[in-house]
Amino acid sequence: MTYCVGVLLEDGIVLGSDSRTHAGVDDFASFCKMTVFERPGDRVIVLLSSGNLAGTQAVISVLTQKARVEKQAKTLWSARTMFDVATVVSDAMREIEHRDKAHLERSALAFNASFILGGQILGEPMRLFRIYAEGNFIEAGADTPFLQTGEAKYGKPILDRVIGPSTSLIDAAKGVLVSFDSTMRSNLSVAMPIDLICYERDALAISKRRRFAVGDPYFGALSKEWSEGVRAVFKRLPGPSWDG
Amino acid sequence: MTYCVGVLLEDGIVLGSDSRTHAGVDDFASFCKMTVFERPGDRVIVLLSSGNLAGTQAVISVLTQKARVEKQAKTLWSARTMFDVATVVSDAMREIEHRDKAHLERSALAFNASFILGGQILGEPMRLFRIYAEGNFIEAGADTPFLQTGEAKYGKPILDRVIGPSTSLIDAAKGVLVSFDSTMRSNLSVAMPIDLICYERDALAISKRRRFAVGDPYFGALSKEWSEGVRAVFKRLPGPSWDG
Repeated sequence: MTYCVGVLLEDGIVLGSDSRTHAGVDDFASFCKMTVFERPGDRVIVLLSSGNLAGTQAVISVLTQKARVEKQAKTLWSARTMFDVATVVSDAMREIEHRDKAHLERSALAFNASFILGGQILGEPMRLFRIYAEGNFIEAGADTPFLQTGEAKYGKPILDRVIGPSTSLIDAAKGVLVSFDSTMRSNLSVAMPIDLICYERDALAISKRRRFAVGDPYFGALSKEWSEGVRAVFKRLPGPSWDG
Repeated sequence: MTYCVGVLLEDGIVLGSDSRTHAGVDDFASFCKMTVFERPGDRVIVLLSSGNLAGTQAVISVLTQKARVEKQAKTLWSARTMFDVATVVSDAMREIEHRDKAHLERSALAFNASFILGGQILGEPMRLFRIYAEGNFIEAGADTPFLQTGEAKYGKPILDRVIGPSTSLIDAAKGVLVSFDSTMRSNLSVAMPIDLICYERDALAISKRRRFAVGDPYFGALSKEWSEGVRAVFKRLPGPSWDG
């Protein structure tokens, strides 16, 4: 599995991804699922990968190569809007699927790479998308400011409670990390290191990026304070009466 | 979907079930998923139902009829242990599956009734089981004191944090209700009324049973206090630094 989250706020975008990949519990590994395309002052594009690693890595390689080589065609560097960036990613996904589909089907597999895409291009608003394996995509908005992929359920209740469009970047970053903490307790296929970016609106460069590895002192303190605080709130809750 | 939880504690057993059934979001209804077989002083047996309603209702009817009619065969009233009760339930499930299987398969459906079973028989310890649709079952123990069926993920983190074998009955009841609150916020196919039983060890009768319907003042207060308390804990958490 995987767990990735993107949060679109008035003040910026927060993006987080775990690093565990696996083919069964007896075959797991660690790969960074966060890819950044940054040209300071012009654009910041962040992709969070979910699904079969061969598929997501191939899509990233196609995007990287084309952005470097192509002079005429639309690429991550030449796209004028984040919507156009989403279509560039989608095209790369469909190219890989077209190449692999018949071969995967012989093993009863399907192309299942999917992405969270967030970022901003000079003169354009920040935007956040979830691109499905089929290459179509949805965009976050004020009513639903966060998008998740992979093992989304364990970590959703805390995001529902604390995230809104006007949440500060720092609070959204905390919320995303607590959401990872809840998820990692319940699903072995989601694990550290966690990659986290806080992109500040109109900065057109990334200044706040952190990796939280096993034993990270801040993450450990956050997890402990959250756990103790939640238990204390729970202790104070009234019990039910039985005459209702 | 459905959400059912059973918790086995040193002091007793807590059991909770929602009431929503549906065949698509355009066809939903309310049915109690909690069935109690009680003979005060001798035994308390509680079943929580998940899965296709036709299947779970048929199993309950078979169990009820056989318990009333059969004088020789093993029934819910004559079983000597909770393990034997689990096999009686399992046999009823397999009887219904045998009857319906071919007909369901013609519509590409499968028998998918499953149950949480908890209770106690005079002279025996309390026991808690999860019976799968295939009729095999697992039993809760000190390492894993709670069992869930249906939409289990949204409500699991809070149970993981607050439930252990020595948790009091009242705290476990609170934990189960908070777990329902988190689940109902995220999945429309889980909904009130919630049926809740707190069985006290060796009581061999049920004295604490409540139904929480929409607008229940206690549940509303619990939900509000929990939400506000959790947000306050969250606000106090330290933010990450970015030089790591």
